[in-house]
Amino acid sequence: MEFKVNSKELEKLLSKIIPAVPTRTPMPILENFLFEVKDGLLTIYATDLEISLKSSLNIVSDENVEVVIPARLLNEIVKSLKETVIHFKFLPNNKINLLTDTGKYMISYLPADEFPEIASVDSEKGSGEINEFSINGVELRQAFDRGSFAMSKEEMRPAMMGTLFEFSKDGLRFVSTDGHRLVNLLKKNIVTSFSQQYVVPERAVSVLSKILDEKEVKIHLSKSYASFKLNDIELITRLISQKYPDYASVIPMENEFLLKVNTKDVHDSIKRMMLFSTTSTRRVKFSITKDMLNISAEDLDIGASGEEKVKCEYSGDELEIGFNSSYVNDMLSHLSGEEQIIFKLHSPTKAVLINPVKEKENEELIMLLMPVRLNT
Amino acid sequence: MEFKVNSKELEKLLSKIIPAVPTRTPMPILENFLFEVKDGLLTIYATDLEISLKSSLNIVSDENVEVVIPARLLNEIVKSLKETVIHFKFLPNNKINLLTDTGKYMISYLPADEFPEIASVDSEKGSGEINEFSINGVELRQAFDRGSFAMSKEEMRPAMMGTLFEFSKDGLRFVSTDGHRLVNLLKKNIVTSFSQQYVVPERAVSVLSKILDEKEVKIHLSKSYASFKLNDIELITRLISQKYPDYASVIPMENEFLLKVNTKDVHDSIKRMMLFSTTSTRRVKFSITKDMLNISAEDLDIGASGEEKVKCEYSGDELEIGFNSSYVNDMLSHLSGEEQIIFKLHSPTKAVLINPVKEKENEELIMLLMPVRLNT
Repeated sequence: MEFKVNSKELEKLLSKIIPAVPTRTPMPILENFLFEVKDGLLTIYATDLEISLKSSLNIVSDENVEVVIPARLLNEIVKSLKETVIHFKFLPNNKINLLTDTGKYMISYLPADEFPEIASVDSEKGSGEINEFSINGVELRQAFDRGSFAMSKEEMRPAMMGTLFEFSKDGLRFVSTDGHRLVNLLKKNIVTSFSQQYVVPERAVSVLSKILDEKEVKIHLSKSYASFKLNDIELITRLISQKYPDYASVIPMENEFLLKVNTKDVHDSIKRMMLFSTTSTRRVKFSITKDMLNISAEDLDIGASGEEKVKCEYSGDELEIGFNSSYVNDMLSHLSGEEQIIFKLHSPTKAVLINPVKEKENEELIMLLMPVRLNT
Repeated sequence: MEFKVNSKELEKLLSKIIPAVPTRTPMPILENFLFEVKDGLLTIYATDLEISLKSSLNIVSDENVEVVIPARLLNEIVKSLKETVIHFKFLPNNKINLLTDTGKYMISYLPADEFPEIASVDSEKGSGEINEFSINGVELRQAFDRGSFAMSKEEMRPAMMGTLFEFSKDGLRFVSTDGHRLVNLLKKNIVTSFSQQYVVPERAVSVLSKILDEKEVKIHLSKSYASFKLNDIELITRLISQKYPDYASVIPMENEFLLKVNTKDVHDSIKRMMLFSTTSTRRVKFSITKDMLNISAEDLDIGASGEEKVKCEYSGDELEIGFNSSYVNDMLSHLSGEEQIIFKLHSPTKAVLINPVKEKENEELIMLLMPVRLNT
């Protein structure tokens, strides 16, 4: 058994697949690639049992082969080579020779049947409908960028450890929340014939964010799996089966006090106030008057405090409200493209909404942030 | 008590001094700057008791002040400000107000007498001669770059945890070694009237490497301290009092087998072989014949091996010799500016010398590397 492949083409392929290889796992077999050579097509798979990546490449081979190869070692070897032809030659003792013009390398392989089965959307065909839609890769990545920071890291509420894809007559809505903050982004231009909710796990979102480009992405959704077909690579992910919390019910409607500020001014101030907010609470205080937002923080542990004035336009009752400065910082980092934003408030204990002043075409973005108590 | 200072000027000053502030220390006082305002001159000190840095700035002040201020917090605050005037105002309760156009910050300070005394070369005037010489900052940094990696990290032999400065009629010699490898660089253009050995600790070398620029450096050496006066900053370091080992006696004279290779070719090959060398030994094997250097490695733990051919010119008996691949990699990284290098060998158990084929003007560079046994 043998085949030949150009080192740079293989390097490109491996670099796309390696994000699915887990860094720490109780199952060492997952630290491998599955190589499948079939009729001159080399397909490489990797999986962590939650997500899988696969991609293919035409190569020179007379035989069909299926083997399992150490992922990181192979990736490092191939990355370190100059452009050359690599001749993979399988030896009987579970060894592979990799031969190049100037070098000869030997690594071990395992039989293919030790590798877990790669799930697919098609395998579920019997058990319900498969929905499909398309979206531009950059648009999808931007949607993830807006909200992925707000996904929960707490295993207690599994649904919140993913991003909600909600299809309705309004369009496609992306929702992420950890209970303290929530990002709700509606893409009105994504129109589908079905109405449905799917929860895509954090790892799929983060790996997709790395590999999405300006090409169209074709997405298939079954009850338990989603497949994202990019130009030259497919990501398959398990979906989170728990029901997503009723996000709409937590978005307040009565927030009538409007605070308009320059995004960068507030963000710069928040970054400085983070130096003064107590490490345990990270609390920062907004004291809001008609034309001046006063931001302050105090770290009793080190006896330091800070306060700053930021110009604003405010219509509402004078108000003092506390926030976790890290959370405000996260929000503003993901709004840094917006020149001005509006905080919509009601009282020191009610959720606050944050919007860009200028909405993007076909887009509706609402961020929500829970305040923290000031008198503790 | 109060003074005013431009935020960007203070930022520049703090960024130079902060490298001397230890990141972990059993003495929290060392995590502070000493601020000394005297007749309109602000001088800032930091020390970890081994090295000290000091630098000054003219400011607006009517009074003289000496206080101790949290180093990292102040540095972060000042870095985060736009260009503005900072008004330092000392309050009676050991607090300082920092006032700017838009912000008001409060931090704590401590009285100056809690800060350890900063050593100086002058303070030793009574106890022996003070030698002095000058060197261009870039030249000194390049000398450190060549050899600093070879200094020992083992506390067992304190002298080897520094770099030897040896002044003699030949010039200034820099020597670093950890017993496995040695770098010996002679700068023939540094001529002094004195002959003496000084051992400068690793931390001084590494901090100097960060702050040296193309300006001249004035260096004063007493028995226990060295002072490096740069354009706008002074570093004072304790010298290592233990005698430096007799490096000259370990440099072999009889290495008559000469192996000339292209530096990058060998280095690229070594980097690949590091993927195959056993993690515990890191061993790589050189098999040398007249016109071909065969480099190979084997990792029995993971059942992988590699071998590569690199063209060479060799005059000597055919030879097999083993090295620690990390050490070879370190050496070659610090010779990457040299197109061709020569390995001078004698036998598989004797130290090997490595030289650039083309010496720089006024410079003599010898690197030495101990081989490792092949038959274990």
